[in-house]
Amino acid sequence: MIIIMERNSTLPNRERVIGLLEENGFVTKVDVGEIFTTIQAFGDKTTVTPGRIAALEGIKEVKEIREPFRLASRDFKEEDTVITFANGVKVGGTNKPVTIAGPCSVEDYDGLMRTAVAAKEAGCEFLRGGAFKPRTSPYDFQGYEEKALEYMKRVGDATGLLTVTEVMDAGDLELICDYVDVVQIGARNVQNFKLLKAAGRCNKPVILKRGLSSTIREFLLAAEHIMYQGNTNVILCERGIRSFDSHYTRNVMDIAAIPVIKKYSHLPVIVDPSHGTGQRYLVEPMAKAGLIVGAHGIMIEVHHDPENALSDGKQSLPIDMFKEVMGRLNALTSTLSPMA
Amino acid sequence: MIIIMERNSTLPNRERVIGLLEENGFVTKVDVGEIFTTIQAFGDKTTVTPGRIAALEGIKEVKEIREPFRLASRDFKEEDTVITFANGVKVGGTNKPVTIAGPCSVEDYDGLMRTAVAAKEAGCEFLRGGAFKPRTSPYDFQGYEEKALEYMKRVGDATGLLTVTEVMDAGDLELICDYVDVVQIGARNVQNFKLLKAAGRCNKPVILKRGLSSTIREFLLAAEHIMYQGNTNVILCERGIRSFDSHYTRNVMDIAAIPVIKKYSHLPVIVDPSHGTGQRYLVEPMAKAGLIVGAHGIMIEVHHDPENALSDGKQSLPIDMFKEVMGRLNALTSTLSPMA
Amino acid sequence: MIIIMERNSTLPNRERVIGLLEENGFVTKVDVGEIFTTIQAFGDKTTVTPGRIAALEGIKEVKEIREPFRLASRDFKEEDTVITFANGVKVGGTNKPVTIAGPCSVEDYDGLMRTAVAAKEAGCEFLRGGAFKPRTSPYDFQGYEEKALEYMKRVGDATGLLTVTEVMDAGDLELICDYVDVVQIGARNVQNFKLLKAAGRCNKPVILKRGLSSTIREFLLAAEHIMYQGNTNVILCERGIRSFDSHYTRNVMDIAAIPVIKKYSHLPVIVDPSHGTGQRYLVEPMAKAGLIVGAHGIMIEVHHDPENALSDGKQSLPIDMFKEVMGRLNALTSTLSPMA
Amino acid sequence: MIIIMERNSTLPNRERVIGLLEENGFVTKVDVGEIFTTIQAFGDKTTVTPGRIAALEGIKEVKEIREPFRLASRDFKEEDTVITFANGVKVGGTNKPVTIAGPCSVEDYDGLMRTAVAAKEAGCEFLRGGAFKPRTSPYDFQGYEEKALEYMKRVGDATGLLTVTEVMDAGDLELICDYVDVVQIGARNVQNFKLLKAAGRCNKPVILKRGLSSTIREFLLAAEHIMYQGNTNVILCERGIRSFDSHYTRNVMDIAAIPVIKKYSHLPVIVDPSHGTGQRYLVEPMAKAGLIVGAHGIMIEVHHDPENALSDGKQSLPIDMFKEVMGRLNALTSTLSPMA
Repeated sequence: MIIIMERNSTLPNRERVIGLLEENGFVTKVDVGEIFTTIQAFGDKTTVTPGRIAALEGIKEVKEIREPFRLASRDFKEEDTVITFANGVKVGGTNKPVTIAGPCSVEDYDGLMRTAVAAKEAGCEFLRGGAFKPRTSPYDFQGYEEKALEYMKRVGDATGLLTVTEVMDAGDLELICDYVDVVQIGARNVQNFKLLKAAGRCNKPVILKRGLSSTIREFLLAAEHIMYQGNTNVILCERGIRSFDSHYTRNVMDIAAIPVIKKYSHLPVIVDPSHGTGQRYLVEPMAKAGLIVGAHGIMIEVHHDPENALSDGKQSLPIDMFKEVMGRLNALTSTLSPMA
Repeated sequence: MIIIMERNSTLPNRERVIGLLEENGFVTKVDVGEIFTTIQAFGDKTTVTPGRIAALEGIKEVKEIREPFRLASRDFKEEDTVITFANGVKVGGTNKPVTIAGPCSVEDYDGLMRTAVAAKEAGCEFLRGGAFKPRTSPYDFQGYEEKALEYMKRVGDATGLLTVTEVMDAGDLELICDYVDVVQIGARNVQNFKLLKAAGRCNKPVILKRGLSSTIREFLLAAEHIMYQGNTNVILCERGIRSFDSHYTRNVMDIAAIPVIKKYSHLPVIVDPSHGTGQRYLVEPMAKAGLIVGAHGIMIEVHHDPENALSDGKQSLPIDMFKEVMGRLNALTSTLSPMA
Repeated sequence: MIIIMERNSTLPNRERVIGLLEENGFVTKVDVGEIFTTIQAFGDKTTVTPGRIAALEGIKEVKEIREPFRLASRDFKEEDTVITFANGVKVGGTNKPVTIAGPCSVEDYDGLMRTAVAAKEAGCEFLRGGAFKPRTSPYDFQGYEEKALEYMKRVGDATGLLTVTEVMDAGDLELICDYVDVVQIGARNVQNFKLLKAAGRCNKPVILKRGLSSTIREFLLAAEHIMYQGNTNVILCERGIRSFDSHYTRNVMDIAAIPVIKKYSHLPVIVDPSHGTGQRYLVEPMAKAGLIVGAHGIMIEVHHDPENALSDGKQSLPIDMFKEVMGRLNALTSTLSPMA
Repeated sequence: MIIIMERNSTLPNRERVIGLLEENGFVTKVDVGEIFTTIQAFGDKTTVTPGRIAALEGIKEVKEIREPFRLASRDFKEEDTVITFANGVKVGGTNKPVTIAGPCSVEDYDGLMRTAVAAKEAGCEFLRGGAFKPRTSPYDFQGYEEKALEYMKRVGDATGLLTVTEVMDAGDLELICDYVDVVQIGARNVQNFKLLKAAGRCNKPVILKRGLSSTIREFLLAAEHIMYQGNTNVILCERGIRSFDSHYTRNVMDIAAIPVIKKYSHLPVIVDPSHGTGQRYLVEPMAKAGLIVGAHGIMIEVHHDPENALSDGKQSLPIDMFKEVMGRLNALTSTLSPMA
């Protein structure tokens, strides 16, 4: 790291910084400039964090050189992470992008089955469906919990689709892992560190959604929390970030985050245009935008009867529209050359 | 609510909306304009939510008239909520603003006691200290957990200060309630709904921090989740929001949120200038800004040795500086007339 | 518009609102709800603006039903605007997307010519180049002004490329119109209303860039300022908006804004991935993302020697890389079916 | 500046950087780390800007050490800038905070005079009033231009108040300077560089408003543009920035920006709570917040008849309310000790 001393800092201030760093095994180099003095420190950042140095007297700024995430970084592992499922589906690397489709919330068995059959026919690999629902208002539908998990398992078994559901609390994780193939951590829990750690100790791949105001760096550090506990099967998901304009779209989809993440991390990254925009008519174009910049997959909300959906009906595709959209998305995917 | 139909919506679209509303006990009024048709709906929003209507065909926009929060709203309860503790301390209404002071993390017993004694002498009512720490990076210090809770209890008992600590997971709540007087839910958990619900069933007051990207409305809806479970002793805390500029301050403190919240809600609201700015030199001015616009309290990070603090040293006040700051803040408080 | 009265508003408050509206030719309807009273007003918003009503006593909120822009709106003109140039190039509607390429700043004649020849060979229709440069710091290069305009004209004439340059001040507009085919208004001037008005009275098409913090609605209102003066040949350009994360990309490109704008407006809309990301490696993927969601064109910074460019070298493509990128973009464009 | 090379950069990449720097008179130091190589460069940033270096091959990041603004910086001039007017009014330093009051737009002579008399009686030093109005929509009132300037001058002369009005275009500056004592540049023109330069050559002090999405650094660089042309009498004005939440307040006032700016710059800084919040009931608390953190002045919109104001009526105080508010603000000001 590089430490910039305040203009009016004293020699004892500077010696305090150097002393602390050297006690902890860092090598330091001092450069006295016309106005500012800088100290470069080389060593293991976990023994003395930048925040620790920043708290000393006379410090203007501490700049990190290495990315603060490690296990998630390409500096640590150059080749792409590919997650392989028992049925042969692969996510990441140069594999064909996958599709995860299904309702926001699992409501009834028959509706879920109808949606799943359509998803299977359209070439999807995964069925999504919410059992535990994070809702901004306590007056909104909160999910059918274990009953929904049972439906997911039965429908997944019947169709051969892999299943994905969201976990909202570390206490529910074991139950959820009994029923589904992939665990999802939602945008609102991206810094629920207890949950990240618990997910890091479970034996299922994790889809981690970017928080509404997560920087890309914080997003990768959230993945790092999971990986640090041993679970390296993390799929990142861009799903829109909060901006100053929410009039026509719920969020702003940061499509450039896909190639950025692919440059700095080896983890697979997918996009969710349903939550990313909140508008049915934008799902297809934004799914295409994600695919063409190299996303490893897409996640789409589909409902057999959106007008009666208990949540997120406005952004869910009805089954007929979904089939047409998937036809065009599959056509696009087939033209994309494998991407490094 | 008011429903605006798309310009090219059909008569059956409109009838579908009206039918759904009327089946659910709403009274509707239709106004056919030159370009747009609007439908006003009067009734209980919990039976048909705005999102449900928005999913129907031919809808341009659904506008809510009432605030979506209820229990937290002044429309529901006009008089200020005042929380009274066993030792007579009161938070809210026209009571003197309270001060919550202490280290980011509890580290050792002696340091905590030194800080607490200084806080008590300076006229503070509450001691804060972290036992479970949310940290962006897994390589940062994560808190001493139960040992820290024990120290908090012993120091609180010895000094007569009420104690506050953060809960990060519903599974830890019972343990934490055994040790402290007030439970805090952090900015990163403001939409951890499982935790909000659990806090709503505990018997301790809750300090709820505004999320980094919570709108004021979402913040009050998060409080609503707690209140809906029965715990109406919620203290809101403005602690800075995320903006496009984080160069000189970590966050932007939304000082106007204090009078806004006091207009729309009866709950007490406090400010945290330490997290709100991330800079020691800004703690005093921003605490004053909060107090002069009517905050019911302030929360300040103090450390007996900030240069060696295991977390947030940069924004913590050393004890001597804290005493001087508190002298000036108490002088300000004494000049403020009671506020409605 | 719909006016929602405050809970504690009085009958005279309400009568004042109705009186003012009716004096100005509005028809009103009052609905007295359990908690809130609403007034619907039908009439010409230009005689009594929502802001005027909002200033009256006892008003909680004024909601607009119609979009505030008119000339730019599809409600006003359903068919796409297509701008046709003397050489037959067409922008907008279902025409093939156009490409605008060239250096950030015009520096020397030979370099500009080399870039222009490469652009022409790669199938581009427009040459861009800055003569007057908006720069955050006064210590940065500010542009060669008229000399640069002369070079643009000569190079445009020699290659058959149409030319685009930015105008920063109403006083320069006449001069600029003498030299180039299209006038560009930059992000920082999107609410420079004097300049918008002046551009509305010139006889050249205008490329209007979205401001760093323009909502889509404000962006369309800025176009409205130009159109209101008589110039309806406006091309909108999405070029990235400001967000809380500028670590890996300068701005966040709002790719969804393309289909949103195409739904609400008839004007052509293009994307600028060079400014939108500020990173050379992101230009190609983000150009593709823009094209696949239906942009009517792309704008790319190219420089014959980016390492020695006087501005924006980091995001400019060198000529060789540009040719390769254009090959792939042209291949993509040829697969896109005409879009409505 | 400090240059961090890409992990996979080559020796020739590095030599190219060093060569360019040394040719331009910089002294360089290279540190080869385990993963990253850094180059420190000491010299005059105007000969080789950070952006120029960033465009070279193999660069990961270029970090600046010095603030990019100079004339506006305390590193350049330690003592506070104080602006003294002919009538003895002083702005900046430890002088009593000033008050600027008046209508959004100048409408008629009598109304302006009534407002001015009230302002004078309440102890204000400046009268504000818009002659040229920036308006988001072309359908809103655009100002009475020169007639309004004449009224401002007559009313200023009659009451002894100094006068302030906004300039929107470099072409109007000379006219405006003939009539008023202080020229204001609005938030939407904070990066209208032609206007900044023109203002830098006029002989009147300039109030420069922070842009809706200006970082503090960009704001100070905008001031630098003015100062660089010779006019060092710049008063900065915080007036709210754009955030993700505009439901209850139009903008978020960044109150902490006042002490931040006072730390890094010697220029006077004031606050505008009327535009900062857009709500009448928030003007008083936010004016107080600004004053208590050390603002050198406040700017308040007052109208003799807000219900009939042609612009911004909702946030303007009626005269009676204004007098009461000023009584309380003057009482607060009198308790504030002079601030360094």
